[in-house]
Amino acid sequence: MSEINLETEIAELVEWLGAFGADSQGGVSRLLYDESWVQAQEALRARFDESGFSARYDEVGNLFAKFEGTKYKDETIATGSHVDSVKFGGKLDGAYGVLASFLATKYLKEKYGEPLRNIEIVSIAEEEGSRFPFTFWGSQNIVGKVDANEIKGIKDNDGVLFEDAMKQAGFGVKTTNDGIPSDWKKWLEVHIEQGAVLEIEKLQVGVVQHIAGQRRYTVEITGEANHAGTTPMKYRKDAGVATAEIINNIHKNAVEHGEPLVATVGSVEFTPGTVNVVPGRSNFSIDVRHTQKEDIISFTENMEKMMKDVAEKAGLGIEINLYMDEDPVPMSQDIVDVISKQCEELKLNYKVMHSGAGHDTQRFAPLVPSAMIFVPSRAGISHNPAEYTDPKELAEGVRVLAHSLYELAYKEEI
Amino acid sequence: MSEINLETEIAELVEWLGAFGADSQGGVSRLLYDESWVQAQEALRARFDESGFSARYDEVGNLFAKFEGTKYKDETIATGSHVDSVKFGGKLDGAYGVLASFLATKYLKEKYGEPLRNIEIVSIAEEEGSRFPFTFWGSQNIVGKVDANEIKGIKDNDGVLFEDAMKQAGFGVKTTNDGIPSDWKKWLEVHIEQGAVLEIEKLQVGVVQHIAGQRRYTVEITGEANHAGTTPMKYRKDAGVATAEIINNIHKNAVEHGEPLVATVGSVEFTPGTVNVVPGRSNFSIDVRHTQKEDIISFTENMEKMMKDVAEKAGLGIEINLYMDEDPVPMSQDIVDVISKQCEELKLNYKVMHSGAGHDTQRFAPLVPSAMIFVPSRAGISHNPAEYTDPKELAEGVRVLAHSLYELAYKEEI
Repeated sequence: MSEINLETEIAELVEWLGAFGADSQGGVSRLLYDESWVQAQEALRARFDESGFSARYDEVGNLFAKFEGTKYKDETIATGSHVDSVKFGGKLDGAYGVLASFLATKYLKEKYGEPLRNIEIVSIAEEEGSRFPFTFWGSQNIVGKVDANEIKGIKDNDGVLFEDAMKQAGFGVKTTNDGIPSDWKKWLEVHIEQGAVLEIEKLQVGVVQHIAGQRRYTVEITGEANHAGTTPMKYRKDAGVATAEIINNIHKNAVEHGEPLVATVGSVEFTPGTVNVVPGRSNFSIDVRHTQKEDIISFTENMEKMMKDVAEKAGLGIEINLYMDEDPVPMSQDIVDVISKQCEELKLNYKVMHSGAGHDTQRFAPLVPSAMIFVPSRAGISHNPAEYTDPKELAEGVRVLAHSLYELAYKEEI
Repeated sequence: MSEINLETEIAELVEWLGAFGADSQGGVSRLLYDESWVQAQEALRARFDESGFSARYDEVGNLFAKFEGTKYKDETIATGSHVDSVKFGGKLDGAYGVLASFLATKYLKEKYGEPLRNIEIVSIAEEEGSRFPFTFWGSQNIVGKVDANEIKGIKDNDGVLFEDAMKQAGFGVKTTNDGIPSDWKKWLEVHIEQGAVLEIEKLQVGVVQHIAGQRRYTVEITGEANHAGTTPMKYRKDAGVATAEIINNIHKNAVEHGEPLVATVGSVEFTPGTVNVVPGRSNFSIDVRHTQKEDIISFTENMEKMMKDVAEKAGLGIEINLYMDEDPVPMSQDIVDVISKQCEELKLNYKVMHSGAGHDTQRFAPLVPSAMIFVPSRAGISHNPAEYTDPKELAEGVRVLAHSLYELAYKEEI
């Protein structure tokens, strides 16, 4: 048997899975428990079974396919990603990771036969929060951190209850809570970068050492809405000008703080929002991320103080609302080292980096040694039909995963 | 006969006229040619006639009431304001000026009898542009600057054609174009300030020397929408940050340029406008006003250059669209002097100032010596049910107008 052509196979698999939920925008809309989602999971189940990896669902629809090891039967190296997409998303975010795990395992089976430890491919039910306002549904269930009450009354945009959608897809809430599977010894996830760092720096692989933590804020500044013609500059209480000063300060301070800190004001609204009225109110969002919790804390504490100072100096009111506070998640340095070593042996240009985006892996990493492998995203685009990675690069991601899984599942010492 | 109590009368008149178009917000919605507008003009016509000022409409619905002079029958001192309001506006903007002109003329008649020159009270059909996207409909028709074709196809929010609304109210497009009435020798308009300068500076009257000119812009800045987590600061093309820098610069430069320059960014929108996406595009408005054309030109030329520099430095695209360019309009210094002298004789605290807002007077001033009298607006509020001026201050405005009209219409030399 000739060796699998990873480049051809991964490209074909991506197209194959991308057909489930193919949408009018030329991308993929495969939302949790919808028809295309059910078909995709079923198709994957059949593929896994055919390839000799016996597949099963858990109660909520996470799909697990085990390639059983010969020696350490209670030790599993788990690998996968999520099968759902955002609405009008691409073919790669999530799906590529599921397929890379499958293809790497298939490659190992054909090349080396059975491993010492089990390899388990996981097609996680949901990560994006695109259908229901609930993210990490799949991984949270795998680690036993969801209470059935949490989804009570939650509906999608068409008014369908989360629970009804689940039942219609043939699943239900989890009645057991055993925590993360006790046999899981390692977790690896392959994913597109969703940023442009690898592309800009001409690298083939990213080895993820941290998933950034983040704080998100909404801020409201209150001044006075006055006539833009009849109100001299000295008598204004312009919420818009204060907002502009804050946006500039956040940007300047973020650049000065240095990488990997990022801070973004992504949305802003002036009220009444009319050309000839001085803004009486401004509402804007802030998103701050870093791999170290102490950096997030020190940056945002200074930022909050700066915003209050700007408002006070201008005689304006301010309300600062911190509505998301996610800690950074470190990966297992041991696995990072294993992956890095494979990249070196494969003579790939790689970089140990962090993920600025959230991933299923952040739910597993506090409980089991975990790491991630990134491949380049063209122009950093994701959550968009234009999401693209060259098949050659997709194949390198699979190859690095396969070699890493070999180290972890086929060798005595890990 | 006892002297008219101006305070009581003007307060009553304001309430009386405010009943036509009284709306659910507690203010006035009296839009061009609607039922309340027709009733208001008809009620004014009756009042004017009763008081011995023979009233007539022109073809489009401007209402003129002449108190005939005894000597200079082809010389008229015209005075008035507009009868329409914005939607959910107040009782004073426009209406107060019409009523002040009426009450001042009535006061003069009772106190001094007939003038040498005619006094003509004008209730102008429309100024606000609130029903149809067309401002200064009334004054533009008075000066003969409207072509019937200009309103062809224009509809209100309910889909009613401008022409149909006009016909239903009993009017039609003007078929004659004689320009401004040849007997008009002076024009005076009383209006609320619509700003807070008089209130803050504890003044009773403003004598308007200039109506500011203005330029309005829309600006679009184009960068790249990128993931807020995965895009390091150094790789961003953030249209929002550039916008913030521009807003700050405009504000700083406007303050440095000095009064009476005002510059306002009243609306801004980031696209996609999501907390976790670096803004790829920003659209915002700019409004710049000054009483001197050369100041508007120099300020906006520097501003345009500054904006291009900011965009270029950040590697962003920029489109600057100047969509309104109104020249400043100077008032007649002679009339400003007459009004100022009356303020002094009446021992009122007054200020020679400019109007930052537009008024009917700016359509007349280039053709006939004109000026305006302002009374304080509480908290600078206008176009709002909360629009308010103390009846005592409303009365002072009427008194200053009456004394000024006396100078202009009852004396030989003007």
